[in-house]
Amino acid sequence: MKQNKYDDAVFFSKYEKMPRSIQGLEGAGEWPVFRALLPELKDKHVLDLGCGFGWHCRYVREQQAKSVIGVDLSDKMLQKAKELTNDPFITYMKTPIEDIQFEEEEFDVVISSLAFHYVASFEAVCKKIYRYVKPGGSFVFSVEHPIFTAREEQDWYYDENGKPIHWPVDHYQSEGIRETTFLTENVVKYHRTVSTYMNLVLQAGFQLKAVKEPAVDEKLHPEWKDENRRPMFLIISARKPKETK
Amino acid sequence: MKQNKYDDAVFFSKYEKMPRSIQGLEGAGEWPVFRALLPELKDKHVLDLGCGFGWHCRYVREQQAKSVIGVDLSDKMLQKAKELTNDPFITYMKTPIEDIQFEEEEFDVVISSLAFHYVASFEAVCKKIYRYVKPGGSFVFSVEHPIFTAREEQDWYYDENGKPIHWPVDHYQSEGIRETTFLTENVVKYHRTVSTYMNLVLQAGFQLKAVKEPAVDEKLHPEWKDENRRPMFLIISARKPKETK
Repeated sequence: MKQNKYDDAVFFSKYEKMPRSIQGLEGAGEWPVFRALLPELKDKHVLDLGCGFGWHCRYVREQQAKSVIGVDLSDKMLQKAKELTNDPFITYMKTPIEDIQFEEEEFDVVISSLAFHYVASFEAVCKKIYRYVKPGGSFVFSVEHPIFTAREEQDWYYDENGKPIHWPVDHYQSEGIRETTFLTENVVKYHRTVSTYMNLVLQAGFQLKAVKEPAVDEKLHPEWKDENRRPMFLIISARKPKETK
Repeated sequence: MKQNKYDDAVFFSKYEKMPRSIQGLEGAGEWPVFRALLPELKDKHVLDLGCGFGWHCRYVREQQAKSVIGVDLSDKMLQKAKELTNDPFITYMKTPIEDIQFEEEEFDVVISSLAFHYVASFEAVCKKIYRYVKPGGSFVFSVEHPIFTAREEQDWYYDENGKPIHWPVDHYQSEGIRETTFLTENVVKYHRTVSTYMNLVLQAGFQLKAVKEPAVDEKLHPEWKDENRRPMFLIISARKPKETK
């Protein structure tokens, strides 16, 4: 069963109100770091896994990509994504990420923003993506950081006045399901370690180009300063070698 | 100033009593993972940065490496290392890691175990190592995990009965000095993030081969089971490309 929390009415109505849903990429703290890792997109064929409202797809087309396919599992997300564009070179597909099927070497670039921690087998997904990417092509993705997903609570440890004392870590090496609360209860995420994310990318055949744990600019966003107390996002930029075995 | 805590009498006498000092590599929980990342060592020239008592140097020679140079800053450590071997192909040098000077492409393999978190500029060290490694050569190192080094306390958060509740993380994005307690007080370590370790290795020109955060086998070592609650070590295996620009 692939979880589709985004079609849950309560969850969706809360998600719609998040800064990243209203302001798009500019409301996502990690976006400048993610964007900086993207390769030249002009004339490229791009796949976006977990496209949500399509913010990344539209950005990619603004960079003059030839085409972009956005994949998501949620009817509500895709419906809104479709409403937000009439670009014939953006295609939205309803498919669980685990079940994607494309041509070998169909894409120059595969991106994914904050979706893979909902996917049970990242290994299988990595192997598929490797096949679908052209030699020399790019794979750039973000996930919630394993330090964030380790505990089911996924929350700060607070003092009696509700002030965060520190970020608690536990069960780090125990990979698997975390039934947690994000906007609503009973959201299922998959916790895996930093090294597992890296090694599955490497074992699929990719070369790692960069690894980022975006910090926030406390001067620009004083309201986000606690984000620098622990890593919130892990972003990995990888490349399929030009000459593959 | 390069810190040399290992020549402090109290620190050293405590360090000597640690399982890893008495039992050597078998007393180091992360050793099986580190060892598995080492390339073929037969007939190789090897450099060990922060060699301590020389356990790794002797292991490397048992694998029929042609030569190994162990570098450390501590007279006491090097004295003991020298007492433990009469192998003419092991050379011990007293030099701070930051100050090493070798020939270009002198080594096939550079290793380092739990030393770089004492080094102020990992960037400079990475660049030197890249120069000293032959094309196709290996660089394998372990450090205390950034999740471990983030807070100066570097300790669990305990309940009133002294039981660890969880591992607290704070100040993660704030890289730099941590004055902490390890065996004695006032040990200076340098905290850097996971991504900084990775990116400095990549930016020096290496390719990442594997990243490990060793877990312990709770059946073999029930006394270490808390180690699986948070990552303790980060081990990175990298390679200098055969064809370099």
